[in-house]
Amino acid sequence: MTGGAGFVGSSLVDQLLESGIEVHVVDNFSTGQKRFLEQKPVNVHDVDLLSSGAPLEEIFAGANCVYHLAANADVRSGWDHPFHDLEQNVKVTIRVADACVKAGVADLVFSSTGSVYGEAHLIPTPELAEFPVQTSLYGASKTAAEGFLAAFTERGNLKVTVMRFVSVLGPRYTHGHVLDFVTQLTDHPLFLDVLGNGWQRKSYMHIDDCVRALVSLRGSQPFEVFNLGTSEFCTVRESIGWIAAELGLSPEIRFGVEDRGWIGDNPFIFLDVTKAEIHGWVTNRSIQSSVVDTVRWINANGWVMDLASCRK
Amino acid sequence: MTGGAGFVGSSLVDQLLESGIEVHVVDNFSTGQKRFLEQKPVNVHDVDLLSSGAPLEEIFAGANCVYHLAANADVRSGWDHPFHDLEQNVKVTIRVADACVKAGVADLVFSSTGSVYGEAHLIPTPELAEFPVQTSLYGASKTAAEGFLAAFTERGNLKVTVMRFVSVLGPRYTHGHVLDFVTQLTDHPLFLDVLGNGWQRKSYMHIDDCVRALVSLRGSQPFEVFNLGTSEFCTVRESIGWIAAELGLSPEIRFGVEDRGWIGDNPFIFLDVTKAEIHGWVTNRSIQSSVVDTVRWINANGWVMDLASCRK
Repeated sequence: MTGGAGFVGSSLVDQLLESGIEVHVVDNFSTGQKRFLEQKPVNVHDVDLLSSGAPLEEIFAGANCVYHLAANADVRSGWDHPFHDLEQNVKVTIRVADACVKAGVADLVFSSTGSVYGEAHLIPTPELAEFPVQTSLYGASKTAAEGFLAAFTERGNLKVTVMRFVSVLGPRYTHGHVLDFVTQLTDHPLFLDVLGNGWQRKSYMHIDDCVRALVSLRGSQPFEVFNLGTSEFCTVRESIGWIAAELGLSPEIRFGVEDRGWIGDNPFIFLDVTKAEIHGWVTNRSIQSSVVDTVRWINANGWVMDLASCRK
Repeated sequence: MTGGAGFVGSSLVDQLLESGIEVHVVDNFSTGQKRFLEQKPVNVHDVDLLSSGAPLEEIFAGANCVYHLAANADVRSGWDHPFHDLEQNVKVTIRVADACVKAGVADLVFSSTGSVYGEAHLIPTPELAEFPVQTSLYGASKTAAEGFLAAFTERGNLKVTVMRFVSVLGPRYTHGHVLDFVTQLTDHPLFLDVLGNGWQRKSYMHIDDCVRALVSLRGSQPFEVFNLGTSEFCTVRESIGWIAAELGLSPEIRFGVEDRGWIGDNPFIFLDVTKAEIHGWVTNRSIQSSVVDTVRWINANGWVMDLASCRK
């Protein structure tokens, strides 16, 4: 598992270990957290996937499945470093796929994103939506990675499952609007600055639902795509209400004027998850309960707010 | 114009010069031909677009339009060098787009391919076909490049027009099945080896039609896509018939057994060009006349057969 020290990765590690599966984690700990893997019977390879000497083929040898979760997930920083997403998200993915083929790994699972649809015309958006027009370097890079993976399956012997996530919430959440807002409100409980006008509509899912999908969802084709998300969405304003209520605060909320938080932010993300449901997966957690769960975990793990502050 | 010494590029150069437009060509002559630009009042920059020191911003400064035609167009070689398409077709495109933004160029035209649709379910395939599943590293790389370009237009001030070509035929054709077949039949007139069973159906267009599209077709959105091709297709068998007739030969034709020529070859490419037609562009040349024109040009320019032989 690449990115196995991250939020999603380490949660998946726990689930796999619980099932008695031997797990190897590849992570360079640039955003992954060593504490998420502490005291766990897991083989950790501290490797930079971009390093041409990374011994991926050796690490992957004998594996039944490779989860490729490592990525640059900072959707907003793209424009200062336009090659960053290309390197971290596309080049690395090709390297992983190539190593899977060479090591004889049959099953590759890739964490993609609902951002691949750009600003979809059809909402909720199904996997076979129209040819997308990308709106962010991040979305473009994930779409590109998916495309190269699909091409790799044409060679035969490699099966790829792409999971297009909405944003994930829950314990070990280290990145995103809930952390930004809780960190702000811990710094200054009387006001909250929000990117955009707050009417952006987003769907989220809980990490427990996400992990269950990663473990259980597979299709019959060499290249399969599943949307993953809840069958509901919320506005940023609703989310702020839940966060403030959980913290017992009534801050002044200072919205921006734009309909989106930043260039490339998508004002409405809501995925059609019918295909995943047909394959037996359902979400158990509402967005509201996921937001509240996330706030509680952040409050109990103050170090993650220091992380958020340091990134600024 | 990047790739301005190539087949399409140099033909476009001629047309632009004829219209009195000042043209700067950026080409590393890896596949471009110096002879295509000889005796022409054009500014040639012998630059490798992958070199981090390539002074693109300076070259682009003051330009009204950048045509980005440079690419690795060898659809078949991908698997030996899985990063080749990524570097040549994606990284270079990001570099060109970034330089356009920095140099204040308003108009970027990108040569893409019908291969971006993978194996389309809807044929003829419109621009808004369903979310594609890639079948080749080449198609994946062009799709990826398109996606990054779309993301760049979100920043504002850059307008991108993507032209998704079928294969182009006509004078200066230096690459593809017609050259392969004419070269073979010149070497051994009595037989012809064909990749695949010959029932692959493809659409082609003439370079004159292609150049007219590149010059004239623009849409109103910051990111616009046009399919370019003829409103007909032919089988490889038909194409062979026209080539052999033009050469006055009746070779034994030795077909393969597969329904495609190589891994990632698409057995049926046929694009819906209604959008381009609505914008006033029509093709003047049939596929048959384009094939015949190509055979005549190859025969009159034997050096191009030596090129084909050297590539083997």
